[in-house]
Amino acid sequence: MSLCLFPDTSILCIQVRKTGETAFPAADGTYFTLLQVRKERPMTAEYPNKPVSVDVLDTTLRDGAQAEGISFSVNDKFAVFEALADIGVRYVEAGNPGSNPKDREFFSTFIQTKDAGTRLCAFGSTKRKDKTCDEDAQIQSLLQSGTSTIVIFGKVWAMEVEEIIRATPDENIRMIADTISYFAVRGIEVIFDAEHYFEAAKSNREYAKACLLAAQNAGASCVCLCDTNGSTMPEDVAEYVAEVVALVDPDRCKVGIHCHNDSGVAVSNTLQAVLAGARHIQGTFNGIGERCGNANLATIIPNLQLKYGIHCVPEDRMDLLTPIARKIADIENMTLPGSAPYVGISAFAHKAGMHVDAIKKNTSTFEHVPPESVGNSRRFLVSEIAGKAAILELIRRIRPDIDKASPEVEQVLARVKQLEHDGYSFEGAEASQELLVCRELGIYRPFFDLERIAVNSEHPHIGPLSASSFIKIHVDGKTEVTAEEGDGPINAIDKALRKAMEVFYPELKKTRLSDYKVRVLNRHATASSVRVLIETTDGIRSWRTVGVSTDIISASYQALVDSLEYPLMTARLKKS
Amino acid sequence: MSLCLFPDTSILCIQVRKTGETAFPAADGTYFTLLQVRKERPMTAEYPNKPVSVDVLDTTLRDGAQAEGISFSVNDKFAVFEALADIGVRYVEAGNPGSNPKDREFFSTFIQTKDAGTRLCAFGSTKRKDKTCDEDAQIQSLLQSGTSTIVIFGKVWAMEVEEIIRATPDENIRMIADTISYFAVRGIEVIFDAEHYFEAAKSNREYAKACLLAAQNAGASCVCLCDTNGSTMPEDVAEYVAEVVALVDPDRCKVGIHCHNDSGVAVSNTLQAVLAGARHIQGTFNGIGERCGNANLATIIPNLQLKYGIHCVPEDRMDLLTPIARKIADIENMTLPGSAPYVGISAFAHKAGMHVDAIKKNTSTFEHVPPESVGNSRRFLVSEIAGKAAILELIRRIRPDIDKASPEVEQVLARVKQLEHDGYSFEGAEASQELLVCRELGIYRPFFDLERIAVNSEHPHIGPLSASSFIKIHVDGKTEVTAEEGDGPINAIDKALRKAMEVFYPELKKTRLSDYKVRVLNRHATASSVRVLIETTDGIRSWRTVGVSTDIISASYQALVDSLEYPLMTARLKKS
Repeated sequence: MSLCLFPDTSILCIQVRKTGETAFPAADGTYFTLLQVRKERPMTAEYPNKPVSVDVLDTTLRDGAQAEGISFSVNDKFAVFEALADIGVRYVEAGNPGSNPKDREFFSTFIQTKDAGTRLCAFGSTKRKDKTCDEDAQIQSLLQSGTSTIVIFGKVWAMEVEEIIRATPDENIRMIADTISYFAVRGIEVIFDAEHYFEAAKSNREYAKACLLAAQNAGASCVCLCDTNGSTMPEDVAEYVAEVVALVDPDRCKVGIHCHNDSGVAVSNTLQAVLAGARHIQGTFNGIGERCGNANLATIIPNLQLKYGIHCVPEDRMDLLTPIARKIADIENMTLPGSAPYVGISAFAHKAGMHVDAIKKNTSTFEHVPPESVGNSRRFLVSEIAGKAAILELIRRIRPDIDKASPEVEQVLARVKQLEHDGYSFEGAEASQELLVCRELGIYRPFFDLERIAVNSEHPHIGPLSASSFIKIHVDGKTEVTAEEGDGPINAIDKALRKAMEVFYPELKKTRLSDYKVRVLNRHATASSVRVLIETTDGIRSWRTVGVSTDIISASYQALVDSLEYPLMTARLKKS
Repeated sequence: MSLCLFPDTSILCIQVRKTGETAFPAADGTYFTLLQVRKERPMTAEYPNKPVSVDVLDTTLRDGAQAEGISFSVNDKFAVFEALADIGVRYVEAGNPGSNPKDREFFSTFIQTKDAGTRLCAFGSTKRKDKTCDEDAQIQSLLQSGTSTIVIFGKVWAMEVEEIIRATPDENIRMIADTISYFAVRGIEVIFDAEHYFEAAKSNREYAKACLLAAQNAGASCVCLCDTNGSTMPEDVAEYVAEVVALVDPDRCKVGIHCHNDSGVAVSNTLQAVLAGARHIQGTFNGIGERCGNANLATIIPNLQLKYGIHCVPEDRMDLLTPIARKIADIENMTLPGSAPYVGISAFAHKAGMHVDAIKKNTSTFEHVPPESVGNSRRFLVSEIAGKAAILELIRRIRPDIDKASPEVEQVLARVKQLEHDGYSFEGAEASQELLVCRELGIYRPFFDLERIAVNSEHPHIGPLSASSFIKIHVDGKTEVTAEEGDGPINAIDKALRKAMEVFYPELKKTRLSDYKVRVLNRHATASSVRVLIETTDGIRSWRTVGVSTDIISASYQALVDSLEYPLMTARLKKS
């Protein structure tokens, strides 16, 4: 038994000779058991105000929604909230409930169906100069959102007070104090976001500090310093944060930090702020946000928790970091860079032969933390597949007699690995995954044979529909030839395939497609591989299927076939 | 005339009333002239060893080539070298000349055709324990490379010396000293890369330092501290670098820094090292490299040069930063993230209406440096929320004489609102935006008339390609009828349209699609609206176009037409 201490972390591994729930394999046939020890990292510099824990506020649904190309539906917002709640983020900031009907719907639905384990926050600005809070429609919509925490942003930069909101310095301080106390006296927690704090402090430090004190005295639980344009360098962040930490009353009010990545140092700025005494951090999973994005929580959380031993999320959920980051990227329809620290698919991938040798001798030579500690995996190990337990569970659902030593498990794993190499992703396509398992176990029998499907699309077109599709299939010796028109080729093949299948399987009439997503996988322009994800519903259940091809028609067809065969397969398994 | 000083930079802008080569437009009809002043940034902390300049070593062709999916041909290597020489990087590290025939070809060809304005470096390790330098084939291949600078990496971590190379501590020091002096006495500059320096210093600081002194005394011009596994935090980097700066003789030997991004702080680590006295920095343009990549020089160079006034590349080449970063990404066939600091397409893109208003009043509110200072440009994402200010900005690019009271502004705004109401979105598609404005201003005249385009797709298909496309167009009374096959319907119409257009516009032959993205806009399954975003490049510039339709073929066709008409329209506007 040997001890492997990652020198830069508070993670301790004990090497053992047998596997188990919490053990992961080393190259030499032994196993590591991962112990995350709340041990102080040997800090070289002195940080007397370094906290033992920080509150995490994720603003993916608010600041993140400002990123180019991002748009969340109400359902997307629920899915992001649930993912963040799963990993145990304390606050989820989700936009301004008064700004549009979609946000209003989200906030009102949310209140009725969710508890406050992870707190939903509405976001808005200080009241208008010329209105009371009772008269101000924006303040009233925040109040009506019913959230137990509200984030209020306000001006603290004298130049902006004068030029942008055209108020006197005193008027602005009254706007801050009145707005915060309006909510605080009603028992609502208020976090104050001080916009452009660092510019503000550079040009008029006393005024900026006076605004923060007004916020604290009006009842804010946190004054959050925002580097709104992402200009500030880490050493300056540390200095200004330390000054504010000394200013506020720690029993009443935390200091927070909100960074943007325009200078590529948002992660570092956030860490420096925490070392200087900030106890509240804001950012977005995967760093999405306007311009160069917000501070990336998927990097900051493991840095704080594993490297500094500062608590951010429950310790036993740290291994959800990678799956949650990937799930959120999927909802955003964005491609998570392979190189993303901790959570990227390349983050623990080893290419150089020399490195592979070195890592077999001592994992800390080329890995700064064990990949398992953040739910990621090392890539050169043959046996290494993140979803092994999930696959086994999936197999067991169909064949409860199979255990992890059965050859079928390796066979299914090998097939999944091959398909993932080709660009498939079964994450979020559980119906296609089940069909794959059925095929590998020899249980699957096709529900139809395709002889030919053809689609034609013509521009300009006569009539409202641009595409037509021909299909010929065989089921149990019977043939069906039919056709359909559609709004575009995908719609045309969907309609033709259903029409033909429903002749033999009338139960499919109650199913319909409820979502269709396309993702381009690599860069060879229009000949890139595309992944098509389809969601289908029968009104009660819904299931998701996937297809991958260089040809969007072919990828869509694969996903469509799975979407129809899945309910048929499920029914057949129940009967047998 | 007014003065606009970006408070966090050493950049000075003077507002003037007329345009010119170096002026860029403000919204109110005035112009800014950009002056980059070598003015000290007001540092709050004390950095007595902060240098006035640093040497930049780019290792894209060596460490960058370790990134997943990256492979450089000999021609690619020349193209990367030339791009780096254009911006004035001092050293380009290009691999080990003995490792394979491709690298050997590159080094030998290079020597014959290039001078040493930017120095090419060969990279290799210390000699083998049991051979002299004369006997060691790897050392000989480095010598034969003929480069005037060689980078030698070696072990300084006592654990690695013992476990990986199985040498005694003294043997390792002799390997370092012998190898370096072998080249130094031959008049070749040697940079010593100390692998795993920070782990080494943590476990046995005196030994690590002894290795560095041996390198200096053997004649190394630089000892470069490598955070090989990307584990070290900025405050630790600062402390260890300061210690080494105090150790070496500054007249003989510089201290260098080489960081990896596994903790998301490689940029910050490099900056901290420089503030502590490092005078040599290593990294890669766009941060490519193994696992999470290397320190990103496209972020570090502008941070050092514009924010700290520390010289990295010639001042008058800073506006090449964005084109060079994009060119290198293009050679690598990688997608540069839109959010990349300084050089990304979204780095200076403004979406929220409030921000657009604020930036009109004072650019430093939401921009940390002027986009022109790094060769990038401000973009207002045209949408209803951004409103009139953004539209005016767009119109002015084509017709600088139009002011906000002109009827054309309302007319374009009305058209954009109508299109957005129909489900259109111009976000991130500035080429399509410009074409729209040209159409509304009556400047646009079509470059061709489409009579008919048809696409057929069939499954199963005979031969490798599943789709075929027919096209008939008219240009100036002449007709072209042609066809193409493709891997899927989009690829088929792209190829057919280009083939037909190139008959009349041969200049289009140098353009090609570089990215293709599909996004489903709402949730009506396969009859949803889709937005197709296409990026096209002529190898130097790139532009993005959009098409929206319920039919993916139709949306793709619109974006493809714009992608071909945009360069033609730009050329026509220049002529007129």
